[in-house]
Amino acid sequence: MGRLTRRYRVRRLRDGDWSERPDTLAVEEPLEIRVSGRAYAVTMRTPGHDFDLAGGFLVSEGVVGAAEDIATIRYCTDDSPCARTAATSLQVVAARTSSPGDDRNDVPPVEPNTDTAYNIVEVTLAPGIAPPRAAVERSVYTTSSCGVCGKAALEAVNTTTRWPVTHDAMQVRSSALVALPDLLRAEQRVFSRTGGLHAAGVFAPDGRLLCLREDVGRHNAVDKILGWALRTSLLPLRGHVLQVSGRASFELVQKAVMAGIPMLSAVSAPSSLAVDLAAESGLTLAGFVRGNGMNVYTHPHRVVA
Amino acid sequence: MGRLTRRYRVRRLRDGDWSERPDTLAVEEPLEIRVSGRAYAVTMRTPGHDFDLAGGFLVSEGVVGAAEDIATIRYCTDDSPCARTAATSLQVVAARTSSPGDDRNDVPPVEPNTDTAYNIVEVTLAPGIAPPRAAVERSVYTTSSCGVCGKAALEAVNTTTRWPVTHDAMQVRSSALVALPDLLRAEQRVFSRTGGLHAAGVFAPDGRLLCLREDVGRHNAVDKILGWALRTSLLPLRGHVLQVSGRASFELVQKAVMAGIPMLSAVSAPSSLAVDLAAESGLTLAGFVRGNGMNVYTHPHRVVA
Repeated sequence: MGRLTRRYRVRRLRDGDWSERPDTLAVEEPLEIRVSGRAYAVTMRTPGHDFDLAGGFLVSEGVVGAAEDIATIRYCTDDSPCARTAATSLQVVAARTSSPGDDRNDVPPVEPNTDTAYNIVEVTLAPGIAPPRAAVERSVYTTSSCGVCGKAALEAVNTTTRWPVTHDAMQVRSSALVALPDLLRAEQRVFSRTGGLHAAGVFAPDGRLLCLREDVGRHNAVDKILGWALRTSLLPLRGHVLQVSGRASFELVQKAVMAGIPMLSAVSAPSSLAVDLAAESGLTLAGFVRGNGMNVYTHPHRVVA
Repeated sequence: MGRLTRRYRVRRLRDGDWSERPDTLAVEEPLEIRVSGRAYAVTMRTPGHDFDLAGGFLVSEGVVGAAEDIATIRYCTDDSPCARTAATSLQVVAARTSSPGDDRNDVPPVEPNTDTAYNIVEVTLAPGIAPPRAAVERSVYTTSSCGVCGKAALEAVNTTTRWPVTHDAMQVRSSALVALPDLLRAEQRVFSRTGGLHAAGVFAPDGRLLCLREDVGRHNAVDKILGWALRTSLLPLRGHVLQVSGRASFELVQKAVMAGIPMLSAVSAPSSLAVDLAAESGLTLAGFVRGNGMNVYTHPHRVVA
């Protein structure tokens, strides 16, 4: 797993007895995403699939929609100028695991000489693709009519998405849907050792898992899936279900809509704005999806008995 | 609860039977924090304690350390210019609940005329307090020696904090510590109705709850506590325990350190960088704190049998 987990000494109390033993933790490290030479975002992530994370983040943001929209993605192993190290950094790309969807896994080498080497990813957009606006500007959900508000956030998604999901005719049997959380958990390699990772998975309507990603940040896990779909030319992910291990926030619904995914299924509760966005976007949002049932908050016609 | 929860119609499947019923969800809305007239951050939060959220965020960022460092905090009910509406917005501040620490709760009025009115908080710093650097710049953990890396992130915290926790002599009995998650859950008002909120609470070493906050974002719940402590002149929170309902990320340890809190206790797993920062800062970090035990990752001398 390379840098996905790290071992620590821990003092453990169980039923009144203290002991000391090693414990495995999920790695968290900052990743800076640069677009066309400019810092665009920093996220605290679990290393691995870094190129997919960067690509998927740009899908989420509406910057790119196809693999051809990106000219190059590389680690920026020397702080500046980035281009000088392009050849070196491309060589570290190697397949290291074989979990679903894992034809490539951008994991930095184990034990790099310095911490910094693989925490900057530089994306160069293809000619004709407009670079994104600055991150601060982008994240302010503002319209002239309503200032900062949820409504503006919804509108921003619905005017940006390339693949509206409203008319996606996909249907899933409820018996298949309630099984997804267990299928996801069964494939979570790092969680079982650390208890510390969120997971997201893309499933076909028959319950077949296409791609699973784990990360300390739930938004990163979803971005890594979007980046996998971008790279393998599977966007839009029409007719698929995105299953997440935790709650459903506005941000996760946004990412599903931006990737053309018609259904989001969460193990826990959605927020109000997640439901509002799902309702307006035509996405089916299910929450509390567990062994014996679920709540369907929006567009329930895609869930059949 | 005003705008903390909202009711939705939901289609519910249980043991093979579908029914339709109302469901209560946690509200998520964007909040823009402006400092001295300039947009500094936008966070997706649960409305309520918005002034504490803004103040606490500035404590986390090292911008302020005492109530006197802030001249005014107000809702910006008209987009521009903000100052024009200061008198109006100050009047909406009212106590609405009586949970611990709740001598004031900045909840916008129920059913405001427009969504926008209470989603911008404008902070004016006291004379002599330097405004923060832009958000994008700030969040890039960079040093000239190592680029973007976890080490730089640790250094940034340790050089910024006003109240190093290394020599805090506080001690907590393990029997008191394992009881905190249940005490937190018992006081969570919104979670019990929605299942959708993170919680954070500050406890005295004897297990007395001083302040509890809930939010769709775990970092927001902690910032709301820091803002409460700032406003009530309780900073630094020496000799206290911060208990959180979920995992312990780098960001949560950072916020504890910035507020001078010597112990962070989490119901779930910490990340690697959370442990690294706790180790270096002198903070006691406990994870998997549950009925029959816990793991103590750093500085275990503060937990006594």
